[in-house]
Amino acid sequence: MLPASVERLVAELARLPGIGPRSAQRLAFHLMKAAPERSHALAAALVEMRDTLRPCSLCFNFSEAELCTICADPRRDSSVICAVEEPAGILPIEATHEFRGRYHVLGGALSPIDGVDVDDLRIAELVRRVDVGEVTEVVVATNPTMSGEATALYLADLLRERVRVTRLASGLPVGADLEHADELTVGRALMGRREI
Amino acid sequence: MLPASVERLVAELARLPGIGPRSAQRLAFHLMKAAPERSHALAAALVEMRDTLRPCSLCFNFSEAELCTICADPRRDSSVICAVEEPAGILPIEATHEFRGRYHVLGGALSPIDGVDVDDLRIAELVRRVDVGEVTEVVVATNPTMSGEATALYLADLLRERVRVTRLASGLPVGADLEHADELTVGRALMGRREI
Repeated sequence: MLPASVERLVAELARLPGIGPRSAQRLAFHLMKAAPERSHALAAALVEMRDTLRPCSLCFNFSEAELCTICADPRRDSSVICAVEEPAGILPIEATHEFRGRYHVLGGALSPIDGVDVDDLRIAELVRRVDVGEVTEVVVATNPTMSGEATALYLADLLRERVRVTRLASGLPVGADLEHADELTVGRALMGRREI
Repeated sequence: MLPASVERLVAELARLPGIGPRSAQRLAFHLMKAAPERSHALAAALVEMRDTLRPCSLCFNFSEAELCTICADPRRDSSVICAVEEPAGILPIEATHEFRGRYHVLGGALSPIDGVDVDDLRIAELVRRVDVGEVTEVVVATNPTMSGEATALYLADLLRERVRVTRLASGLPVGADLEHADELTVGRALMGRREI
């Protein structure tokens, strides 16, 4: 009943997390009513984002250049590396303004049941950074979930002899997602980080 | 701190209704993590929708051809026209499967305070359809709001001499939006429509 082009847009919108078929339809109708520039600007932003972004060659954060803005910043402290599961985990930590070190995006957390093994994460790359650099501490900021904790313990066993390995204080309720935590909680967790 | 291309995408997403800055950021991160095809497909759907859609030359519903699928369908009853404010109002009425007539999209509702006058709506076009066709009834399905009611009364005064003018039974709470009503309520309102 809807024109095919609208059905396709609704289907694509409904694939996004948290957007059901009804919200997708509402968004599509909004875009049809709005100025054409809005749809075109959104489409251009989507394509540009996908075409310009690549992983930072050092930390694997999203980047528009060889190095991401954090790795390229000479004022950041190279002796502390904060390991996160995903690039989205960097944002809440940066928002606290408590951390002046650098990051390492693991690309997930160990979960043998889901087939995520040590080789699937960027753990070897982290070890290499620790080996070659003047790193003195690795702050493990994986999520406070089963797989996040397993990853933290694995990293601690692996790196303990070489550097100080710390973990964000668990102020976050277990099972929660770092990405959605508020800045105060993340800041406090960062301040109270403890040796693993 | 986020790459410029991501900031732009977040800004465009946050312009959509019901999507705040935080949801926009979550959606952007989802799209960065998902396969590039997802962003490209969404971008293509947006552009295609905007570039292929135009108003139906008869009823002003969104259409991919000269006539929309409803106006082009010979099985629809041409003697009954349902006047809605926006194309989005057609969907909930179609969903009831109670209406076999055709539609007319007014393009809004009379609201002198907002500068929406008779000439700003497609009222002349509706009168022309009534004059030339075999129309016997106009069902006014404007929203049960102040401006929707004002539009319904204006249309009734204008058309009463020529055709039967009816109004969806108000089962919807006043102030609500036709677009967001459930099918049962809209169906009941359609069945109980009354002469204005």
